[in-house]
Amino acid sequence: MTDNVTIAVDAMGGDNAPEVVLEGVAAALAADEGLIVILCGPADVVEPFAAQHARCRAQVAAEVIDMAEHPAQAVRKKKDSSIVVGCRLVKDGQAQGFFSAGSTGACLAAATLVMGRIKGISRPCLATVVPSPARPIVLCDVGANADCKPEYLVQFAQMGSVYAQKILGYESPKAALLNIGEEDTKGNALAQEAHQLMAKRLTNFAGNCEGRDVLGAQYEVVVTDGFTGNVCLKTIEGASKVLFGAIKDAMMSTTKGKIGALCVKDGLKGLKSQVSPDTYGGAPLLGVKGACIVGHGSSGAVAIENGVLTTARVVRQGVSEIIQHMAQAGNGSDTIK
Amino acid sequence: MTDNVTIAVDAMGGDNAPEVVLEGVAAALAADEGLIVILCGPADVVEPFAAQHARCRAQVAAEVIDMAEHPAQAVRKKKDSSIVVGCRLVKDGQAQGFFSAGSTGACLAAATLVMGRIKGISRPCLATVVPSPARPIVLCDVGANADCKPEYLVQFAQMGSVYAQKILGYESPKAALLNIGEEDTKGNALAQEAHQLMAKRLTNFAGNCEGRDVLGAQYEVVVTDGFTGNVCLKTIEGASKVLFGAIKDAMMSTTKGKIGALCVKDGLKGLKSQVSPDTYGGAPLLGVKGACIVGHGSSGAVAIENGVLTTARVVRQGVSEIIQHMAQAGNGSDTIK
Repeated sequence: MTDNVTIAVDAMGGDNAPEVVLEGVAAALAADEGLIVILCGPADVVEPFAAQHARCRAQVAAEVIDMAEHPAQAVRKKKDSSIVVGCRLVKDGQAQGFFSAGSTGACLAAATLVMGRIKGISRPCLATVVPSPARPIVLCDVGANADCKPEYLVQFAQMGSVYAQKILGYESPKAALLNIGEEDTKGNALAQEAHQLMAKRLTNFAGNCEGRDVLGAQYEVVVTDGFTGNVCLKTIEGASKVLFGAIKDAMMSTTKGKIGALCVKDGLKGLKSQVSPDTYGGAPLLGVKGACIVGHGSSGAVAIENGVLTTARVVRQGVSEIIQHMAQAGNGSDTIK
Repeated sequence: MTDNVTIAVDAMGGDNAPEVVLEGVAAALAADEGLIVILCGPADVVEPFAAQHARCRAQVAAEVIDMAEHPAQAVRKKKDSSIVVGCRLVKDGQAQGFFSAGSTGACLAAATLVMGRIKGISRPCLATVVPSPARPIVLCDVGANADCKPEYLVQFAQMGSVYAQKILGYESPKAALLNIGEEDTKGNALAQEAHQLMAKRLTNFAGNCEGRDVLGAQYEVVVTDGFTGNVCLKTIEGASKVLFGAIKDAMMSTTKGKIGALCVKDGLKGLKSQVSPDTYGGAPLLGVKGACIVGHGSSGAVAIENGVLTTARVVRQGVSEIIQHMAQAGNGSDTIK
């Protein structure tokens, strides 16, 4: 784990940038002795930090892409933004991966336009590790492609399976199609056609699964279009937040409950971190040339640290190269080894 | 609340039929003095029960549609099934509403084919009351129409708003479109077009909402296609189940936690019933001529009781008639009063 890896990091990404980004990068550098970071952002942010940290180089990027900007337009216009500059470092071979907790849309656009799509991959997909109390699984696409064709979903399953194997460590990940019933014939037109195609082309296809199976599933990869996946992911986040809040309220409403709350605090804290998106530090964009991970906008320092470390891990595990080989091998009927 | 209402009930619907259905019907009859039930099912089930209960009449239906059968085919073939017979009672004016905890697909098919679609409504939609610790909201469509056109979603919003107003008691329900971002231009092709149309045609449109807003939302109605809605609903169900299970495990893993668990038990029990789908007893099919509510397959007696009572309430509140007027009024730009 100590082979050197260079990751470009967007110093300006996220609601709490640059402070928490710097904090997270410092922690990541301390945790991984083979990690080299190229910190992209305004000179007054990145230069003092780089001067104080070994294995960190400053790359000045004067512009910042705002969360509210139109992603593709912003990427085209702001060529000196931290996101575009970071992706260009990967394109130029100076870095092997890019991490940002900034605008997801802008990161997707920049990674696709600047780093480039892997030949043979129709559409890169945004995957995410769904934090579950049972065990983590890969859900993809969660928002890169709102409208999909059935063949995209086949590739999402292949790419997600590589990630589940190499990053989550599942030996033989199974991929299920998110659908509205278990039977083969269920679903909208996309899901029905995707089911047929996945059954034909994937050796690790596990059939349909439903919304209730995403947390605590028997599958390691759940595949869907970017619209449904995004709704599903955000529904899980929302439900967790509302339920934890309601549990706290329910406990705090009585004296007996308050005493109980004190006793169960530690257990619940552990669980809360288990289901926190921060634990996995971000969503990988799969199908581009290089590692690219996008963190949650609300990332704290721990999430940033985990995100940077995971990006390095994606590089070391050769995720992008495996996907490249898979895409070259054609329809990929036998790609998950 | 004591005006007489006659509801046809499928005695054979659900995983625990007929026992829990009979128990639930008995409770509903006891709770609502104006309720008359026509119980549909095999003679040996419905006749003894009707003989023992005032305001209950037996309607023999020899066949049962199985959960696993193809819905439309089963409805066409099994004309003497409890589901088809129940819907026919509404069609013939003998009952004003139908409740079943049987196959959702078969109920949708039977209600649409036998009771009939309201003129002017393109597609009936399956709505559901999402049980939230914050407050209940209407989510529709949750599975009647896997593939939708933008104009369907406009009508779903109108019908869901009538339900939110008349059954949940919200004076001026706001309807939001489930999407993957707040901006008008976000989403897949369907959501983008639906947004434009809803903005133009609905007086109570609240713009986009995201998956994380479905529980604990600022909106009373959330509208989407039946595929996304079904995934969203089942994701909430799954997340609640997994989280409550994990919380129990987290507490039970230490002695201190076990003591705490005893103290917070009552509070959590209350919360669990708040977020239980049983509380609302089922999903209304909106847009057919008559009241039709489909209960969860796993309904217990309480869910059946609530489902039957809610069906009577839908009749008394004239939900179907209001939707009929709305549909006749044309595009319904001003329908939610």
